Amino acid sequence: MSAVLAPGADVATRPALSKLANAIRFLAIDAIVRAGEGHQGVPLGMAEIATALYTRHLKFLPADPTWADRDRVVLSNGHGSMLLYALLYLTGYEAISIDQVQRFREMGSHCEGHPEIAPAHGIEVTTGPLGQGIADAFGMAVAEAYLNARFGSGLVDHHTYAFVGDGCLQEGIGQEMISLAGHLRLGKLVLLWDDNRITDDGSTALSISENVAERFRVADWHVVEVDGHDLEAVAAALAAAKLDPRPSMIACRTVIARGLARLQGQRGGHSGRLYPEDADIAREELDWPHAPFEVPAQVLEAWRDAGRRSAEKHAAWQARHAALAPAERAEFDRVIAGRLPDGWRETLLAYKRQASERSDSPGGIMISAEINDLLTDVLPERMVGCADLEAPTSHKRRLAAFTAADRSGAYVHCGVREHLMGAMANGMAAHGGVIPLAVTYLAFSDYERPAMRMAALMGLPVKFIFSHDSIGVGRNGPTHQPVEILASLRAMPNMLVLRPADAVEAAECWEIALEHTSGPVTMVFARQALPLVRRTHQSDNLSRRGGYVLAEAESGARQVTLMSTGSEVAIALQARDLLQAQGIPTAVVSMPSWELFDAQDAAYRACVLPRGGVRVAVEAAVRFGWDRHLGERGGFIGMSGFGASGPAEELYEHFGIVPSAVAAEAKRLLQPGS
Amino acid sequence: MSAVLAPGADVATRPALSKLANAIRFLAIDAIVRAGEGHQGVPLGMAEIATALYTRHLKFLPADPTWADRDRVVLSNGHGSMLLYALLYLTGYEAISIDQVQRFREMGSHCEGHPEIAPAHGIEVTTGPLGQGIADAFGMAVAEAYLNARFGSGLVDHHTYAFVGDGCLQEGIGQEMISLAGHLRLGKLVLLWDDNRITDDGSTALSISENVAERFRVADWHVVEVDGHDLEAVAAALAAAKLDPRPSMIACRTVIARGLARLQGQRGGHSGRLYPEDADIAREELDWPHAPFEVPAQVLEAWRDAGRRSAEKHAAWQARHAALAPAERAEFDRVIAGRLPDGWRETLLAYKRQASERSDSPGGIMISAEINDLLTDVLPERMVGCADLEAPTSHKRRLAAFTAADRSGAYVHCGVREHLMGAMANGMAAHGGVIPLAVTYLAFSDYERPAMRMAALMGLPVKFIFSHDSIGVGRNGPTHQPVEILASLRAMPNMLVLRPADAVEAAECWEIALEHTSGPVTMVFARQALPLVRRTHQSDNLSRRGGYVLAEAESGARQVTLMSTGSEVAIALQARDLLQAQGIPTAVVSMPSWELFDAQDAAYRACVLPRGGVRVAVEAAVRFGWDRHLGERGGFIGMSGFGASGPAEELYEHFGIVPSAVAAEAKRLLQPGS
Repeated sequence: MSAVLAPGADVATRPALSKLANAIRFLAIDAIVRAGEGHQGVPLGMAEIATALYTRHLKFLPADPTWADRDRVVLSNGHGSMLLYALLYLTGYEAISIDQVQRFREMGSHCEGHPEIAPAHGIEVTTGPLGQGIADAFGMAVAEAYLNARFGSGLVDHHTYAFVGDGCLQEGIGQEMISLAGHLRLGKLVLLWDDNRITDDGSTALSISENVAERFRVADWHVVEVDGHDLEAVAAALAAAKLDPRPSMIACRTVIARGLARLQGQRGGHSGRLYPEDADIAREELDWPHAPFEVPAQVLEAWRDAGRRSAEKHAAWQARHAALAPAERAEFDRVIAGRLPDGWRETLLAYKRQASERSDSPGGIMISAEINDLLTDVLPERMVGCADLEAPTSHKRRLAAFTAADRSGAYVHCGVREHLMGAMANGMAAHGGVIPLAVTYLAFSDYERPAMRMAALMGLPVKFIFSHDSIGVGRNGPTHQPVEILASLRAMPNMLVLRPADAVEAAECWEIALEHTSGPVTMVFARQALPLVRRTHQSDNLSRRGGYVLAEAESGARQVTLMSTGSEVAIALQARDLLQAQGIPTAVVSMPSWELFDAQDAAYRACVLPRGGVRVAVEAAVRFGWDRHLGERGGFIGMSGFGASGPAEELYEHFGIVPSAVAAEAKRLLQPGS
Repeated sequence: MSAVLAPGADVATRPALSKLANAIRFLAIDAIVRAGEGHQGVPLGMAEIATALYTRHLKFLPADPTWADRDRVVLSNGHGSMLLYALLYLTGYEAISIDQVQRFREMGSHCEGHPEIAPAHGIEVTTGPLGQGIADAFGMAVAEAYLNARFGSGLVDHHTYAFVGDGCLQEGIGQEMISLAGHLRLGKLVLLWDDNRITDDGSTALSISENVAERFRVADWHVVEVDGHDLEAVAAALAAAKLDPRPSMIACRTVIARGLARLQGQRGGHSGRLYPEDADIAREELDWPHAPFEVPAQVLEAWRDAGRRSAEKHAAWQARHAALAPAERAEFDRVIAGRLPDGWRETLLAYKRQASERSDSPGGIMISAEINDLLTDVLPERMVGCADLEAPTSHKRRLAAFTAADRSGAYVHCGVREHLMGAMANGMAAHGGVIPLAVTYLAFSDYERPAMRMAALMGLPVKFIFSHDSIGVGRNGPTHQPVEILASLRAMPNMLVLRPADAVEAAECWEIALEHTSGPVTMVFARQALPLVRRTHQSDNLSRRGGYVLAEAESGARQVTLMSTGSEVAIALQARDLLQAQGIPTAVVSMPSWELFDAQDAAYRACVLPRGGVRVAVEAAVRFGWDRHLGERGGFIGMSGFGASGPAEELYEHFGIVPSAVAAEAKRLLQPGS
């Protein structure tokens, strides 16, 4: 610990820690006044809490912001972003200069309205939508525990801290996190709760009466209740938290917007407009006779000292890392960097070759399960979360469970908590060192969707895997039958959606998914059997083009193009047989990924979908979005509303998603004047 | 109470209640064996619980299934649907005949895989996606309390019961419900928890350790723990629940699939395949020597008696209803039937007329807030829920809060619990007597989406209202800026999406929304000011067409059609000015609702969007879905990815959503060969 900040250091040589906390306050006030908007409640209310964490406990080194074994910090109440920016500037993160702070909320500033992921700047994840941050932190703590078990405490042994407000704890995802983190005994997860009893609407008494601390205790958390403005008390609570084997919740009783006479403790403290006069009065009251954005040198130096506190730990870690056996070091460096190991592609290619020759037709999701199981041998950094659907999705197999007692397991039984599962995967990916998969039914992706959006926004390489992707679900009925969900996911920016048609395409889609690191992937599988549609073996990954000619027209120039994805490709092929038998040259285009197809050059797309002729799209889902591919004379065979409860085959008949209907639609469109 | 079932009745004349419970068991077993699939865990595990409720406590009359003051029953663990179907058949709901039960899970049967809303059949809501049911039940209890305050106990005074499994309570939405129901002290809400310690993955110990009963107690619930197979104990717990002013959770310790020797208490009890031999063994063990689907006459008669238990209460209620003053009765009947009152349309028309003449430009959401406030005078059945955004959405104003102490308030402070809010609104709509609105930011609609899907699937007339609908949100940045969400909602079947361009269209969209009762409506408003684009006053509701010519081309035949919605219509109008000034006849089509436009006949659509010429769509959202309207030569000005943090005007410039870009795109498309 730095001499300047050690509790026993000479008082004369160091500014009071309260001054350090006030430095946060005034950076926040000045930035918010200047921007004309912002949320002062958090940075002013949590200034002492943050000061205690950063000057006494946090293991971090702004000079090496992406140090693999750094403690992670998540500002789950992301609207209080100025708290984080102030800390990053004060402790010396190069990217967060005073100029950036002054440009808070301006276009192009690193100090955006809500924190946006930038580990090199000290921002671990994007936060704002409430509850996401603490669920991300949960995922980071899971990843840490797994990597700790895998590589040992010498390499991975850090805490994950999250600042959290009332909103995060009211959200369902926050409650899911409380329950599962307690169950898994994630002892290195520490929440700092800003118990200010104010939300946007006013008093928390408007919407909650329960004893929040007690709710955590029920879920087996270690809970400490402190005065959040008593820096020493917070520091002591943090020390206790680090000793306790349970996850810790430090309930910090605070005054929202503390320091602003007009607003503190009030509803307006949350984000009510600040004026220069408010800043002036606060300067007077808090004895802060410094210009806006000016931090007195001694205070700044004390903060910079805090930013160097972990230098020795960092050096010791580097020494341990350097002393590793080369193979172990290489493996550690590989997984931290997110590089794939040797052999993974060969595993998939071997599967694909075998798949192209097999005679059985496994269920779609079982194909993914087989591939996932094969990867157990070559991809030890893969972690699978599943929301209580182990048997029907089968992505556990040889994986052990990650439990309170055994951190080496790579399969997390998430319980019926899809939303947490998605955000957990985000936190794992943001942490690094693991490749997270999240598995459930496609109909329940809506529960997970806010986390999927965050993955897309952050560009995190999460693999979202879904089964039961259409009316093929059958008798469980319309609640469990997605019809609009493919469209809703295809609409999401930076979300790569893959819907393979058979085992060969599934192997290709898995290859694409593992290579894809600039954002999340959604892989969608049928529950029902997927007969083989790609009987010829190619080592080329045809799915990488997004869409390709699976069967070209025969006996003449192409008149009809049938486009399809997933389980309906087989129907399109049968329709092609009907049309060819009637002398109508018909091609089938398989389109496992619209995003990838759209990314091809115009020449390729025109080759797959030439001008002229007619096109019919076939998908057991709504038409929405397909018009982009239908051209001037196009039709659609699929769903126009929700599904129904009945055997899958009967449902396909009932809704007319059958070869004869596809052929009929093509012939209708071929009529002149249609 | 029926003599046959009264605790003191002559034992010789009535079958043991255990026989009644076993009637449920064997109907479930026989139906599931016959269907070849289903979930036996719930009906077998909860048979005694259900028998206690239906024979001792439930106020219901199968002969008048939609009696306004009936107790509501929700099967939140909807996969156990055979529990409900068995109860409905046994107690005498006409629609659920033994033939229907025998056709469980077949196409067209009323006994679908999961219960699907059909109040006339005794099915109050569709359930299946876990957690939705108990949140619906919460909404029903809120509606009941409000209507009780409004009309008095003589007309509305019933309980809401929900069967619930572990999954519902693990889900975040379930946790949100626990918290808010305790806070609001909804004493007539009673949960019957199937505490069988098994989920699909196996033991609940895989994913939860907390004491669930304790978690409820923390949230101020009345909790009773009983043996779920002790019918008298459950009946006593129900009696206690009815006396307690807090919501009640009856924790019923049960054995999953009880009665099936091979599966009871096991993971496979949940939904493992049942065979005829299982049924045979159960018949032996439970002394049930009856053929499949045969219920012995005495048992059936006892059940039918239970279905007549409330006949006296029903008659008394009808007498009270008949004795009401005519005006009060008419008003009660009106709101229960969901008929709008006199005067509501005039209120909107008056607002629209004034709006077409006003000179200020209020924020989009503030326009909706003004309209909502006007309705306070004419639509007393309107209830508003909001997820802790009262100030920025402003849909409270003259409404009082609905609280534990005051049930007459029509505004529910939901806290930061969007998902619960959506499902609460569903439950209110399913209950009837109130018109629910749910208000939050559009970016957070994803949190609410699983409930919105249920509203669409059920065809419930919920009004989902969203503010902050685009990059116009500004500095709060991309987490808070929807870009893909309009598309994802437009993709949802039976969801009517409305995005008005100004105060005139807003009044029209409110008119449409209130008239629309066959499903939910999503109304989307900008945060920023919406300048008036409809300066001419029409009493016709032009928005009802979904899309209409707002400004026709001038000085020649139309060459360019600009299509737009919401805040971008003003940009399209400015682009039109630019193009007209260059001699290019340009029309602007406002498209507040794609669904309504698609529902128009071809002639109308061709008139609005004639063939030939070029079209440019302008929307501060992704292109996804717009291709349907772009025709052969179409372009799009909007977003291609997520937003950014900065002032709204700068963001529009940055992303090129400006009149000059629209005009340039139109001119590019007008070039030959473009």
